[in-house]
Amino acid sequence: MPVARVVVDVMLKPEILDPQGQAVQRALPRLGFAGIADVRQGKRFELEVEGPVDDAALARIHEMAETFLANTVIEDFTVKVESTETAGASS
Amino acid sequence: MPVARVVVDVMLKPEILDPQGQAVQRALPRLGFAGIADVRQGKRFELEVEGPVDDAALARIHEMAETFLANTVIEDFTVKVESTETAGASS
Repeated sequence: MPVARVVVDVMLKPEILDPQGQAVQRALPRLGFAGIADVRQGKRFELEVEGPVDDAALARIHEMAETFLANTVIEDFTVKVESTETAGASS
Repeated sequence: MPVARVVVDVMLKPEILDPQGQAVQRALPRLGFAGIADVRQGKRFELEVEGPVDDAALARIHEMAETFLANTVIEDFTVKVESTETAGASS
């Protein structure tokens, strides 16, 4: 059965304060890492999808991300198909 | 000044149990989303790097990810250069 990995990245919108990212950024110079102007921290979801990742499946995953994985009031998300392994010959 | 975005993705190693991802996966059918075989949840760090992202800078970011952003006992990480905006003409 074809199994594909779809990645949903969820990041705070640019205008929303990101205290986690700021904490990381402030710690970096103390640890000897200079030259990082900004850090934003977000979430990455790796979904293993059964069956073909066609437009319908992607639309469903998009809806899932919008309603469930991300809080679209404060977060943006992107959906990316990362790999498609087909057991057999297919695109 | 050139500013590049470097993304560090940190995911639990495949052999480590991921209760967050499991919670998401179990909730999906209840919410009407079928066909997702597995969900893993990880972290995404977006770093805005000052100056050129050459091999030395990438090596530094790699070291940073290894020592600070990821716990390499239980987590894997990947470093990707996502975009390079140069103020001027350059690749």
